Amino acid sequence: MSGNTFGTLFRITTWGESHGCAVGVVIDGCPAGIPLDDADIQKELDRRRPGQSEISTQRREEDRAEILSGVFSGNTTGAPISILVRNKDVDSSKYEELRNTPRPGHADLTYELKYGFRDWRGGGRSSARETVGRVAAGAVAKKILAIHDIEVLGHVVELGGIRAKPVSIDEIYENAEKNPVRCADPEAAVEMAAMIHAVRSEGDSIGGIVEVIAIGVPAGVGDPVFDKLSAGLAHGLVSIGAVKGVEIGAGFGSALMKGSQMNDTIAIRDGKITTITNNAGGILGGISNGEPVVCRIAVKPTPSISKEQHTVDMRNMEEARIKIKGRHDPSIPPRIVPVAEAMVALVLVDMMMRGGFINTSRTG
Amino acid sequence: MSGNTFGTLFRITTWGESHGCAVGVVIDGCPAGIPLDDADIQKELDRRRPGQSEISTQRREEDRAEILSGVFSGNTTGAPISILVRNKDVDSSKYEELRNTPRPGHADLTYELKYGFRDWRGGGRSSARETVGRVAAGAVAKKILAIHDIEVLGHVVELGGIRAKPVSIDEIYENAEKNPVRCADPEAAVEMAAMIHAVRSEGDSIGGIVEVIAIGVPAGVGDPVFDKLSAGLAHGLVSIGAVKGVEIGAGFGSALMKGSQMNDTIAIRDGKITTITNNAGGILGGISNGEPVVCRIAVKPTPSISKEQHTVDMRNMEEARIKIKGRHDPSIPPRIVPVAEAMVALVLVDMMMRGGFINTSRTG
Amino acid sequence: MSGNTFGTLFRITTWGESHGCAVGVVIDGCPAGIPLDDADIQKELDRRRPGQSEISTQRREEDRAEILSGVFSGNTTGAPISILVRNKDVDSSKYEELRNTPRPGHADLTYELKYGFRDWRGGGRSSARETVGRVAAGAVAKKILAIHDIEVLGHVVELGGIRAKPVSIDEIYENAEKNPVRCADPEAAVEMAAMIHAVRSEGDSIGGIVEVIAIGVPAGVGDPVFDKLSAGLAHGLVSIGAVKGVEIGAGFGSALMKGSQMNDTIAIRDGKITTITNNAGGILGGISNGEPVVCRIAVKPTPSISKEQHTVDMRNMEEARIKIKGRHDPSIPPRIVPVAEAMVALVLVDMMMRGGFINTSRTG
Amino acid sequence: MSGNTFGTLFRITTWGESHGCAVGVVIDGCPAGIPLDDADIQKELDRRRPGQSEISTQRREEDRAEILSGVFSGNTTGAPISILVRNKDVDSSKYEELRNTPRPGHADLTYELKYGFRDWRGGGRSSARETVGRVAAGAVAKKILAIHDIEVLGHVVELGGIRAKPVSIDEIYENAEKNPVRCADPEAAVEMAAMIHAVRSEGDSIGGIVEVIAIGVPAGVGDPVFDKLSAGLAHGLVSIGAVKGVEIGAGFGSALMKGSQMNDTIAIRDGKITTITNNAGGILGGISNGEPVVCRIAVKPTPSISKEQHTVDMRNMEEARIKIKGRHDPSIPPRIVPVAEAMVALVLVDMMMRGGFINTSRTG
Repeated sequence: MSGNTFGTLFRITTWGESHGCAVGVVIDGCPAGIPLDDADIQKELDRRRPGQSEISTQRREEDRAEILSGVFSGNTTGAPISILVRNKDVDSSKYEELRNTPRPGHADLTYELKYGFRDWRGGGRSSARETVGRVAAGAVAKKILAIHDIEVLGHVVELGGIRAKPVSIDEIYENAEKNPVRCADPEAAVEMAAMIHAVRSEGDSIGGIVEVIAIGVPAGVGDPVFDKLSAGLAHGLVSIGAVKGVEIGAGFGSALMKGSQMNDTIAIRDGKITTITNNAGGILGGISNGEPVVCRIAVKPTPSISKEQHTVDMRNMEEARIKIKGRHDPSIPPRIVPVAEAMVALVLVDMMMRGGFINTSRTG
Repeated sequence: MSGNTFGTLFRITTWGESHGCAVGVVIDGCPAGIPLDDADIQKELDRRRPGQSEISTQRREEDRAEILSGVFSGNTTGAPISILVRNKDVDSSKYEELRNTPRPGHADLTYELKYGFRDWRGGGRSSARETVGRVAAGAVAKKILAIHDIEVLGHVVELGGIRAKPVSIDEIYENAEKNPVRCADPEAAVEMAAMIHAVRSEGDSIGGIVEVIAIGVPAGVGDPVFDKLSAGLAHGLVSIGAVKGVEIGAGFGSALMKGSQMNDTIAIRDGKITTITNNAGGILGGISNGEPVVCRIAVKPTPSISKEQHTVDMRNMEEARIKIKGRHDPSIPPRIVPVAEAMVALVLVDMMMRGGFINTSRTG
Repeated sequence: MSGNTFGTLFRITTWGESHGCAVGVVIDGCPAGIPLDDADIQKELDRRRPGQSEISTQRREEDRAEILSGVFSGNTTGAPISILVRNKDVDSSKYEELRNTPRPGHADLTYELKYGFRDWRGGGRSSARETVGRVAAGAVAKKILAIHDIEVLGHVVELGGIRAKPVSIDEIYENAEKNPVRCADPEAAVEMAAMIHAVRSEGDSIGGIVEVIAIGVPAGVGDPVFDKLSAGLAHGLVSIGAVKGVEIGAGFGSALMKGSQMNDTIAIRDGKITTITNNAGGILGGISNGEPVVCRIAVKPTPSISKEQHTVDMRNMEEARIKIKGRHDPSIPPRIVPVAEAMVALVLVDMMMRGGFINTSRTG
Repeated sequence: MSGNTFGTLFRITTWGESHGCAVGVVIDGCPAGIPLDDADIQKELDRRRPGQSEISTQRREEDRAEILSGVFSGNTTGAPISILVRNKDVDSSKYEELRNTPRPGHADLTYELKYGFRDWRGGGRSSARETVGRVAAGAVAKKILAIHDIEVLGHVVELGGIRAKPVSIDEIYENAEKNPVRCADPEAAVEMAAMIHAVRSEGDSIGGIVEVIAIGVPAGVGDPVFDKLSAGLAHGLVSIGAVKGVEIGAGFGSALMKGSQMNDTIAIRDGKITTITNNAGGILGGISNGEPVVCRIAVKPTPSISKEQHTVDMRNMEEARIKIKGRHDPSIPPRIVPVAEAMVALVLVDMMMRGGFINTSRTG
């Protein structure tokens, strides 16, 4: 079960289980000289924290981040930054009865088959709680990107078939964080919230689509062939639990297009080479072209639902039925937004370091 | 421009430019004792070779593979397998005039911005000719998978809005290679071919969707968190030029679903734990569950079109118009099928080696 | 300052500074099903712990290990194992005055030049305290090796010119841990201890040589060319602070030998192919041959000495003199033994996983 | 048998067997814009080429390098550089009889045990012929270093107990390449040559020590903890066949020293912080300090000797005797000099790229 490290020069390693004593991350490769304190991390952790609205899980976690290393006198030193978050509101009682009956749509069965032994409490390592480390590390990545005037912002663009109208980047800034579904189209946001209420009351859940945009990425980021920026983003984003697809720019829409529609016209604006449209999503041949980098992920409905489901009892090898009682989000997209932003930020910092855009030793 | 190596334990490195003297690949990590000769490689190269039908580019390449190392007495030795393919039918004359006017939708501009100097002949390193190395390596990966009774097969499921009807795996085997579009639905295949003819006659091109299925993958392949099998597939598939999206199982369709629809019911069939449906695409929590692994890629329309397009002259920094004259496929999906299969095979072998499913030193 | 991760399939990431709040390690890639508790870690940490005898630094650390993840019901789960050790006896007062005057032989100057900002307290990240994480991870590696009947043991073979007589493996088991210098030759141990007392009373320090032997390593471990077992060991061992050289088997002695002396005669003993001598140190062509793997490291004298030394004041760019007052070991070899063992164990587990000798997912 | 790739950002992959049709290397990560032609590679290949003097093997290889990719109009493009060298003077007749009787000191036995099947002709992949790829890649690395005013030069400092007198860097430049043993002390060179003649006439071989110095390395190269510059050099150098040890600066000599002797006094010279001595070998805490980087390797005697040796017949599992008849160097150190230089150059370029000292995309 190697596989808990991500990145080449800017490299994070996450650890921890849903119902263990803590979760955390070690960030290796952060340059020296960046102002950093617990509050920088906390701000992002608070965005993914559960229990904040009635549309998310009712597990109550403070998610208090403690920086254990790598920071001295308020600045990073270049040494690895270890961040610890204690688990507080752990209730494993609901899981005891699910030990032998893998939940459909969950990793219970695959972990059991792979490892032959697993921490069944709250999903163990496969829980969404694993993303705490990603978001904490993403907070550091975002600070580095901010030095280079790059911002990463995400929003929900579709949920259970309800589509947000197309929005400008300003509208995302303005509106996305103002409603619990993180949709930048206020009207669609209301509908989406209603949809979430409805599926929850049915004991069900619902999927959706999240878009992440990186603004200010310079041209030239990404390496050809296997380490394309797009491939790195795909890797990072699909590594998030519940993500079943990713697309860049026009994405699956490009399958319907002709070359004359898809190709972004190249022009000169303000003395700079630019493209008129951005079907490429800011990436051509795997390398950023200076336009906003645009990606979207397909998020499946939460597999934990209280409706009765058919499964098997692995011990007795007989069919069984379960109703899942734990505390779960009825819809993941709103809470996955900061996680997806984190992954995009992590990929960008790593690729920019590899390309010489960000100094690996020190800032400034 | 590191980035030409893919994989951890089964690792390939590709090299070569479209109009250079040769292209090739080094395959490192192939176990000893596998029967291998040029014909094994050739079979797959012939599937991606240009000039085979009127719907592909008219560049004529024999694509004759020469194995330079790693094979002794007809068997692999465990040493790196170096494969060389000489470029024969090179005609750079059409590109000279495009040196300073980057083709929209191409990597010309991004390579220029990144490297400040580039091989502009035929797209240089960013040409689809780069995939020769992937396919040659994929042929070796497929031989390894075959030993473990795993098969990887791809087909075109959509092209310019024309959708193939749902097909069984038997129908893919039966029909996909029988028509030049590689569509397993014969009727849709005819429509797709007509569509390709139409766009070509307009001097245009068209996008589509390719599906790749891996049959026989045992449960337990893939590592949690960042090295999920799904994330590895996403990385590998999006690293192919022209791919703008990837999805696993229900993919973007899962965004429309409720948990009760998406979750695959777990059941016992023939004394084995299985799932009734396969919305998961054979992967849960990043780990294979024993069902077929199903992924699809969105392929954009060929950016090289003969219709006039607007671009800029980089030397004089003024706007310009171009008509691209080279020899190009009007639609990439049919020829990308063997490339996508190769990437899926490469990811599977590497992940299976990491998980101990395939011995890294010797077979049998 | 990436560089805090070691290994490919069995991968550790260490973090923490000498005078920060804690040090620790995340171990990724440990198979599921291995019994593990704090005491397993503690046993090894206690071997490297300071303040145990009068020949080591007087810093008093309990070095209490806390396992934060990856263990459930007393067994590893395959998830990353995060281990935390709080720093207790921190006294930075002696270092304030050394902030601008880099200590000769230390990393003070190189960190300053590289990062432009550093945690100067107790050497920060470059302190020997960094090895706590290595030893904790090594304890886990040793448990894995024990399952495969492999043992790793180290001892001091030379110190300040005093050479231990050649000893058998039994004598190492018997004697090495019985004296504070960890020398398996009891008489030499007494002389070495006297030497350490002498140099300390002079305000000086002394170097030495440590040997580590791995017994029970099967034939076939290590990969050819760049990932030779010997190269991996060299990498791991030279990455330990204060190590200025490494040798395998006859090592530098082989420079004096003829082929007819160096070559180990191959013979059959008890129906098994074996070698009569072991000048190869158990490794030929980078691959283990089934004989004990033998390596030795050259350990420089502790750079922190209380004798007056010449250096520079970096702030004023003028020459300066310093006397270092902190608490330091007058000789590193005795305490480096468990660290070197840990590195050898980590390299072996990783290489054995890569070679398919150890299952990466589960034991048994 | 993965393990044929070296480096992180500047990454080489070598391939080929001693008696196969060719050997070669792919260099990935070379920045664009560096003038490069076959002659640059040839110059270094000629230094390692066999058959040049009576003290080396009489195999006659032109070792003609052909650059197949990555260079356009005389300059690197950033794309992978594939270099091919055909094997010409192959004579496998002497090896047929050694198929089942592993040569003592060779990798025959370990490859057989690991892979169960091997190319026994001329040592196959484990032959010194594998170093052609290293040297070709090293030639490119040296060109990159030269742009940064860094030079790497090696010489033989000891051979069979004959020690060269200490020499200045100027003397190495002046003398090392003027005699077939590559010793910078002309008198010792004569003695060493005589020694080589003597052992050859006995049907024996002899070991020695090679020193490599890198001049002009800026301060700050190397990463802390596991990716120390010293650890990278140790990895790279010990990965060369026949190398049984490596040391940095005072190396094993530091085991005899007191701190007050070992510590290099820090001083100001010409307004720059420097050290008076260089026992550290230019590296402190794993990071370069701006002084020359000095390393030495222990090279074992050639295992192929014509004296009769005892071994086993693996087929019949009975003891046997062999006399090795192929063409072999009676002493490796003279010919390993360019190989060791290549490895040092490769490590430096990679580490300097990781540290931001060398741009990964383009020069200038």
